[in-house]
Amino acid sequence: MAAHGDSPSVRPPVVGVVGGGQLARMMAAPAAALGITLRLLTGSATDSAAQVIAELTLGDERDLETLRRFASGCDVLTFDHEHVPGEHLLALEAAGVAVRPGAAALLHAQDKIVLRQRLDCLGLPQPAWRAVDTPEQVEQFAAEHGWPVVLKTARGGYDGKGVWRLDDAQQAREGLRQAQASAVPLLAEAHVAFRRELAAQVARRPNGQIEVFPAVETVQKNGICHQVLAPAPQLDEPCAQAIATVATTVAHKLGVVGMLAVELFDTGNPSQPVLVNELAMRPHNSGHWSIDGASVSQFEQHLRAVLDWPLAPVHTLHPAAVMVNLLGAQHQDLPARAALAWQREPSAHLHLYGKSVKPGRKVGHVTLCGDEVTQLRSRCQDVAAAIIGASSA
Amino acid sequence: MAAHGDSPSVRPPVVGVVGGGQLARMMAAPAAALGITLRLLTGSATDSAAQVIAELTLGDERDLETLRRFASGCDVLTFDHEHVPGEHLLALEAAGVAVRPGAAALLHAQDKIVLRQRLDCLGLPQPAWRAVDTPEQVEQFAAEHGWPVVLKTARGGYDGKGVWRLDDAQQAREGLRQAQASAVPLLAEAHVAFRRELAAQVARRPNGQIEVFPAVETVQKNGICHQVLAPAPQLDEPCAQAIATVATTVAHKLGVVGMLAVELFDTGNPSQPVLVNELAMRPHNSGHWSIDGASVSQFEQHLRAVLDWPLAPVHTLHPAAVMVNLLGAQHQDLPARAALAWQREPSAHLHLYGKSVKPGRKVGHVTLCGDEVTQLRSRCQDVAAAIIGASSA
Repeated sequence: MAAHGDSPSVRPPVVGVVGGGQLARMMAAPAAALGITLRLLTGSATDSAAQVIAELTLGDERDLETLRRFASGCDVLTFDHEHVPGEHLLALEAAGVAVRPGAAALLHAQDKIVLRQRLDCLGLPQPAWRAVDTPEQVEQFAAEHGWPVVLKTARGGYDGKGVWRLDDAQQAREGLRQAQASAVPLLAEAHVAFRRELAAQVARRPNGQIEVFPAVETVQKNGICHQVLAPAPQLDEPCAQAIATVATTVAHKLGVVGMLAVELFDTGNPSQPVLVNELAMRPHNSGHWSIDGASVSQFEQHLRAVLDWPLAPVHTLHPAAVMVNLLGAQHQDLPARAALAWQREPSAHLHLYGKSVKPGRKVGHVTLCGDEVTQLRSRCQDVAAAIIGASSA
Repeated sequence: MAAHGDSPSVRPPVVGVVGGGQLARMMAAPAAALGITLRLLTGSATDSAAQVIAELTLGDERDLETLRRFASGCDVLTFDHEHVPGEHLLALEAAGVAVRPGAAALLHAQDKIVLRQRLDCLGLPQPAWRAVDTPEQVEQFAAEHGWPVVLKTARGGYDGKGVWRLDDAQQAREGLRQAQASAVPLLAEAHVAFRRELAAQVARRPNGQIEVFPAVETVQKNGICHQVLAPAPQLDEPCAQAIATVATTVAHKLGVVGMLAVELFDTGNPSQPVLVNELAMRPHNSGHWSIDGASVSQFEQHLRAVLDWPLAPVHTLHPAAVMVNLLGAQHQDLPARAALAWQREPSAHLHLYGKSVKPGRKVGHVTLCGDEVTQLRSRCQDVAAAIIGASSA
């Protein structure tokens, strides 16, 4: 029997989330469960998270005054993405706002040159790299490390954007020309002939407590995550140990608060089994499986971490979980398609983001949990294909 | 990387929920995941569900015109409680609204005399009962079935309200006097010396598909649910079978759509192991454990059922789950208390309803999952006590 409620006489904790994508959307469920008031700052009332978060502020998250006003009603400020200018975050912190992760930590997820420099200082494994500005510098880097070279913008890249593979000097000139149009610093990285890609996630509180999620395998195409296998199949113990050490070291040394994702290359080389590719300091696509497959989701863990509440112990609920992203294709009416897909696979966990469907756009994900990863993966791919239809991307 | 979203080009399914208690609140999470738009009709913007559901209509859910206007924007209408007048639901159905569960089914959860008559017709096991109006009728019933007699209002009772235990003729007169103040029909039931209380839940779609949740033991005090043990410990196979048969029969024969809870007495009598106590046609306190302990929560299953989508297969994720209600006591600042309680028991799943704390009021629940029910129960009670403090109720 549901009695009618009135709001609590003690003001609940208020977490302000900047950015209205699916990551903010998926924070809404644990926030409601934990009695946390979630407030959202985003550009449009039709954004993914704006559809499901009642306390909505419309505004430009790159405007300091907008951020100041928004933060004034929040106990803690956290993020759906890395696009808030670092100088604004520093200004907010100077004004006493609890920005989590903090500006100094977040800079490493915003700027790949800052990250690479820091990882070198920490002695953590990563590809050879160098800041570059001219074709001659790229050619010099290639002379030392070989072609192909991977050219990246230090800032603003995501989902394969801001990355160029350069196979020779001519491509280097053309790539630099394209990359320099973005007017941000560039870096060259040695191309890693990796065996597969992995991701590690940890949550860290301001008080230093860390909880580690099991490392996963991520299956990427053109820089976009397509699938996640959790835990990573056939991960040997030295490699698992190396990954956990890298992720906890990064979290501690960079002072991360909240969820941290470390994307890694599995080299197959026992002397250096993994190399750090990228970081994200927020819930991450590689951890969506945890909603249905772990003892705590990355979204609950993130909220607990940024509020400096005790973290939950993490364990898997099944031998295997597979997550497949729904990347926009043929079908527009995803809830109706999902209902059809469920006829064949009723135990599929569906997550739709309320976004309009465009070719290749992440509009949802599907997770299946069970005993055997190969079979789950095949079934999960079938469900995703049934929902999105044939791809035109 | 969370890209910004805009709303889908195809209108998502819209489920209208009447009533703003914690049951509606807990529907918000699966609705967001499944891309369902949830709309809420409730009396106050501070109601439990109104705090977390963005599309809010304030109004009196007992007013037909209010219901009509609300229903006009919804694909399906469902409920947080049974308090919408049946004649209004019939009027909505006559106007073509998809009311789920329907008025004819819901009447059995609204009126105990209607329920008892129907269960007799179906030959389902229940306590001896009779509609009563005078002390003499109660005494006659007692002469046939013995004291004590349980006197109930046919409508409007919940959480121990609307129920009187009568030990003799004098108490019968006093009880009747009190009960008749409510001006609704009354019934007398034989007091059942039950061994324990159980609850069965099933979900049913309009197309007839049913999925059964494992039966649970409910621990009640003064008619209020305090704890749920899932699955019910030491439930022998004939009893489990009898329970599943009762629940699926009720769901089919009454044409229930959505979640059905059947509360039962475990008699310990092999020839009639269970008797039906009450029904609810909505998510129910006895199924809150499913959020953290089952392959699908009762809230997701309810939404799938009322939308006539394929139901999820139900299985437990752990050998045992224990849910303890948080009943208002000493402490007001529940999120802060929860953070303290987590220091000792970080794997506790907390659910706070955003309600002001009053003595004995359901303001949240805690679930622990694991291997052994007795130990989980003790730990879960400790967590609840740490959050709510000493009870003054």
